[in-house]
Amino acid sequence: MASSTAGQVITCKAAVAYEANQPLVIEDVQVAPPQAGEVRIKVLSTALCHTDYYTWSGKDPEGLFPCILGHEAAGIVESVGEGVTDVQPGDHVIPCYQAECKECKFCKSGKTNLCGKVRAATGVGVMMSDRKSRFSVNGKPIYHFMGTSTFSQYTVVHDVSVAKINPQAPLDKVCLLGCGVSTGLGAVWNTAKVEEGSIVAIFGLGTVGLAVAEGAKTAGASRIIGIDIDTNKFDVAKKFGVTEFVNPKDHDKPIQQVIVDLTDGGVDYSFECIGNVSIMRAALECCHKGWGTSVIVGVAASGQEISTRPFQLVTGRVWKGTAFGGFKSRSQVPWLVEKYMNKEIKVDEYITHNMNLTDINKAFDLLHDGGCLRCVLAMEH
Amino acid sequence: MASSTAGQVITCKAAVAYEANQPLVIEDVQVAPPQAGEVRIKVLSTALCHTDYYTWSGKDPEGLFPCILGHEAAGIVESVGEGVTDVQPGDHVIPCYQAECKECKFCKSGKTNLCGKVRAATGVGVMMSDRKSRFSVNGKPIYHFMGTSTFSQYTVVHDVSVAKINPQAPLDKVCLLGCGVSTGLGAVWNTAKVEEGSIVAIFGLGTVGLAVAEGAKTAGASRIIGIDIDTNKFDVAKKFGVTEFVNPKDHDKPIQQVIVDLTDGGVDYSFECIGNVSIMRAALECCHKGWGTSVIVGVAASGQEISTRPFQLVTGRVWKGTAFGGFKSRSQVPWLVEKYMNKEIKVDEYITHNMNLTDINKAFDLLHDGGCLRCVLAMEH
Ligand SMILES: NC(=O)c1ccc[n+]([C@@H]2O[C@H](COP(=O)([O-])OP(=O)(O)OC[C@H]3O[C@@H](n4cnc5c(N)ncnc54)[C@H](O)[C@@H]3O)[C@@H](O)[C@H]2O)c1
Ligand SMILES: NC(=O)c1ccc[n+]([C@@H]2O[C@H](COP(=O)([O-])OP(=O)(O)OC[C@H]3O[C@@H](n4cnc5c(N)ncnc54)[C@H](O)[C@@H]3O)[C@@H](O)[C@H]2O)c1
Ligand SMILES: [Zn+2]
Ligand SMILES: [Zn+2]
Ligand SMILES: [Zn+2]
Ligand SMILES: [Zn+2]
Repeated sequence: MASSTAGQVITCKAAVAYEANQPLVIEDVQVAPPQAGEVRIKVLSTALCHTDYYTWSGKDPEGLFPCILGHEAAGIVESVGEGVTDVQPGDHVIPCYQAECKECKFCKSGKTNLCGKVRAATGVGVMMSDRKSRFSVNGKPIYHFMGTSTFSQYTVVHDVSVAKINPQAPLDKVCLLGCGVSTGLGAVWNTAKVEEGSIVAIFGLGTVGLAVAEGAKTAGASRIIGIDIDTNKFDVAKKFGVTEFVNPKDHDKPIQQVIVDLTDGGVDYSFECIGNVSIMRAALECCHKGWGTSVIVGVAASGQEISTRPFQLVTGRVWKGTAFGGFKSRSQVPWLVEKYMNKEIKVDEYITHNMNLTDINKAFDLLHDGGCLRCVLAMEH
Repeated sequence: MASSTAGQVITCKAAVAYEANQPLVIEDVQVAPPQAGEVRIKVLSTALCHTDYYTWSGKDPEGLFPCILGHEAAGIVESVGEGVTDVQPGDHVIPCYQAECKECKFCKSGKTNLCGKVRAATGVGVMMSDRKSRFSVNGKPIYHFMGTSTFSQYTVVHDVSVAKINPQAPLDKVCLLGCGVSTGLGAVWNTAKVEEGSIVAIFGLGTVGLAVAEGAKTAGASRIIGIDIDTNKFDVAKKFGVTEFVNPKDHDKPIQQVIVDLTDGGVDYSFECIGNVSIMRAALECCHKGWGTSVIVGVAASGQEISTRPFQLVTGRVWKGTAFGGFKSRSQVPWLVEKYMNKEIKVDEYITHNMNLTDINKAFDLLHDGGCLRCVLAMEH
């Protein structure tokens, strides 16, 4: 199925971030054809995530402008570059900011999902082969972002960053499996490996925290304590498996002490899903002596540090973190899509808003609205 | 085999710490008979460890004076209190500061060696049953220490704190299995679970660090990098399995960067065996992205905190700690003694000095002498 646009520059709409903290501009961008080892994708749906916001806000010291943000999306392969064999035009895919090459030291270790193959390029907004961007506006290059740049009707990604999924799956839903939902589920299943009967605490009940709750529920946790300063989160959290709700604002004691008291000594597993370093400390310190494990999922602002007394670790607590929930992207995102198709995991329930690409600045504002979990944009082809 | 002293107060020699930072005083102390659930032990050999020094120095905010320090020892049961069935007079034993009751929440969890049964009493220098001390001088009570107080010819401990060992084992050697050597071996075998072929970094090559080296060697580590500011440690460290030596003073770069450069990205496992919070950070940060695990073994001064950027954990490093190497004391110390008897683990090699109880103040000074690993005191009965 050769596309008529294969080998051509495509001009399409994209939301360009010209400067930190300035509204995105919907522009006609030129998207060059994929080179060897690259895939051009027609993006159909993209959601917004806090990492997009973080870089847009200018707080990410590695953020490069102008760029095209976006990393939680789904689409259809338009054309492929030389040597690409794993996908072909017409395949339904999810672009994966966490690549999986299956041959680097990381992929072969069997111990991590952090592939190192294209990181040197994606970290600085370019493609590996020529260390250039495939996006331009009137000849001026626009940086890629996270190796995905899904706020564009077409994007070019490395072949190691494309998961081929079931073509029956609704792209406007499964796009969420490109980041937040997978991260939360994997934090429980892969990183913490929560066992049946465990007591779990979740700090922050956004999409990531709610996915942690669902993961913990399916793992058989006996108590799932949700902690958030936004009481509106309680009702929705129940649907995802949270059994008890704690608002730190209702207590004078430090939140770690509140949780320790609630659980006769602490929780078996805790998850920080906010990105706040003092909550990361609380999440560790509310773990049970001897075995409690705390997983950092939230991404803190650059330069911030976590701290605790080493005695917390010497007496048996374990401090970990997770990136994309430990999932190997190309191998496991298709499996997550199948689980969704079999109704074994929720996805639709995280989508609180649907908008069009042209409304992207409104969608960005919504990220700070307590009522919004995920807003999915249709790409208006 | 009933002892003639059973049921009587025993007057014997002990080294009493009357005040922080003042020389210990060899005194005649009265040791009351063991009450229900207690065991009176004739101590034959005791070594000195940094935890004794730490409390003696006054830096331990929980230190209580006057007290009898000491926790790395071996002896023979003199008499037992009511209801004690696991040991009887004449049994050769190692007192264990880390108890094992086999019935508390911790013991039953199968996830930790941190028994909670007698902690509330041992933490404040008394025995559980009446929350009083069994030691006195002229009627004035002297506090217990760590539930062991082995700087005395006789001591009274809880039955859950006594490991019965092979009576053939030389007590003046296996006393070391009461703390430092077991801690280092267990940090590798139980806490980190080092696999064959791993690259290991050890910060601090005292007794604990050298035992980590031996543990790593038996686990099949391919490289064992020893880091110490005392170059005299290199020769002895080789005998314990260290394959490379790094002196931080030889480098301008931060030590974590030196180790990362030496190992193409970092080590698989690191161990902090000093008690220095900035080295704890270095030990974590020299671990390989994706899977490197750092274990804190050293005990930092009270109030000090560890810190790092959360990104270190989000990108796959794991931060842990260990107490008594994760060994269940009553169950596993006898097994460690057997391993020593079968020449599967070293013990004699850590003993650099032998002295008498009356020389204990000199032995304390030796703790700060680079040439001293362990000094074993004979109790001069
Ligand atoms: N590690 C990864 O691979 C990965 C992947 C995706 C997202 N993330 C990170 O996960 C975090 C959560 O993402 P999200 O999309 O769910 O965010 P979100 O903003 O939707 O949710 C955060 C929740 O935390 C609550 N909160 C804020 N401050 C709080 C406090 N002090 N105490 C208690 N609750 C508080 C908010 O009310 C909100 O409900 C972000 O930091 C994001 O960058 C990490
Ligand atoms: N977690 C536990 O259960 C447990 C049990 C026993 C001992 N410990 C602790 O383990 C630690 C080590 O005990 P030990 O008996 O081996 O002590 P030690 O003093 O004999 O050894 C410490 C070594 O660290 C080296 N060192 C000091 N500062 C250094 C630096 N900045 N960089 C590199 N090397 C440095 C010293 O030269 C020495 O060789 C102590 O803190 C002790 O309290 C913990
Ligand atoms: Zn994201
Ligand atoms: Zn790879
Ligand atoms: Zn010790
Ligand atoms: Zn117990």
